[in-house]
Amino acid sequence: MPICSVFIATSLDGFIARPDGSLDWLDDANTTVPAGTELGYEPFMRTIDVLVIGRNTYDKVLTFGAWPYGSKRVVVLTRRPITIDPALADRVSASAEDPAALWARLGAEGAQRVYVDGGVTIQRFLAAGLIDNLTITVIPVVLGAGIPLFGPTGRDVALTLFDVTHYPFGFVQLRYRVTRPDR
Amino acid sequence: MPICSVFIATSLDGFIARPDGSLDWLDDANTTVPAGTELGYEPFMRTIDVLVIGRNTYDKVLTFGAWPYGSKRVVVLTRRPITIDPALADRVSASAEDPAALWARLGAEGAQRVYVDGGVTIQRFLAAGLIDNLTITVIPVVLGAGIPLFGPTGRDVALTLFDVTHYPFGFVQLRYRVTRPDR
Repeated sequence: MPICSVFIATSLDGFIARPDGSLDWLDDANTTVPAGTELGYEPFMRTIDVLVIGRNTYDKVLTFGAWPYGSKRVVVLTRRPITIDPALADRVSASAEDPAALWARLGAEGAQRVYVDGGVTIQRFLAAGLIDNLTITVIPVVLGAGIPLFGPTGRDVALTLFDVTHYPFGFVQLRYRVTRPDR
Repeated sequence: MPICSVFIATSLDGFIARPDGSLDWLDDANTTVPAGTELGYEPFMRTIDVLVIGRNTYDKVLTFGAWPYGSKRVVVLTRRPITIDPALADRVSASAEDPAALWARLGAEGAQRVYVDGGVTIQRFLAAGLIDNLTITVIPVVLGAGIPLFGPTGRDVALTLFDVTHYPFGFVQLRYRVTRPDR
């Protein structure tokens, strides 16, 4: 069955975006990153078969202008009506499955590494016990309000730290495996 | 005027205690710390003149049995009636001042290093622009609910990372200075 990963940046107070979804603070922080600095995203993406993103992330990504996921397969989790751009229809699909059903289907279809992205979607997968590892890049700012990475889990989720990288421009990348006695 | 510091442990999702104030998860995590491991608390405490703690923290600390702050001066921020144990009255006082007034008074009284502790109190001092540095020890667990370290700030608080220490038992200690153009 597929390994599910989170790879995301947060403020020190745990927000992935401002309350309106804005990423200006992250864009500002990224201007402090010297050109050519490797923050691990490209190597991570090369391991991924499928992205699972939420509807909010999908709608946000469409505003970026260029589609950021290349030819990678993407599943958009949504229960609302959605029209996928015909230019993306060969690799982007929508699903209203719950996380466990989608995870099982992707596994049956041969997926081995799934990148789970977007606040609500990450929270649903984590609460369902489906996340295997998290890479969190902590940006040196407190926003005071925003869309949180984490939400209710209904139980403690134990983690194993397996890597920490810190950068001269103040980012800290924390990598955890989820400790799962059940798998 | 005094330097104000935060020195605290949080879950990866930013909680300093469970919703009921319980620290069982932190006590459990501390059982994984080898005896003699230095997590920096003692050296930090030696630099401190005064602790400022909230009422919830004070009430919690009283349940510990032994008073944890030795002979250090402690100010309990509270607007509710409070009776200080006579055995502590030589070093513990209560105050209903707002953070800026208390900070100014402590400075006038000669305090140089203040340890600000407790969720609400830290949030009030941070929102008032009075925190100079934060040492946050991130425990490898997601609690899903609890008392958050951070709250509304009304603005972005920029930070400068100045140290990261990670431990084989999975704790990560992040040390930040608050970037304050106004001081």
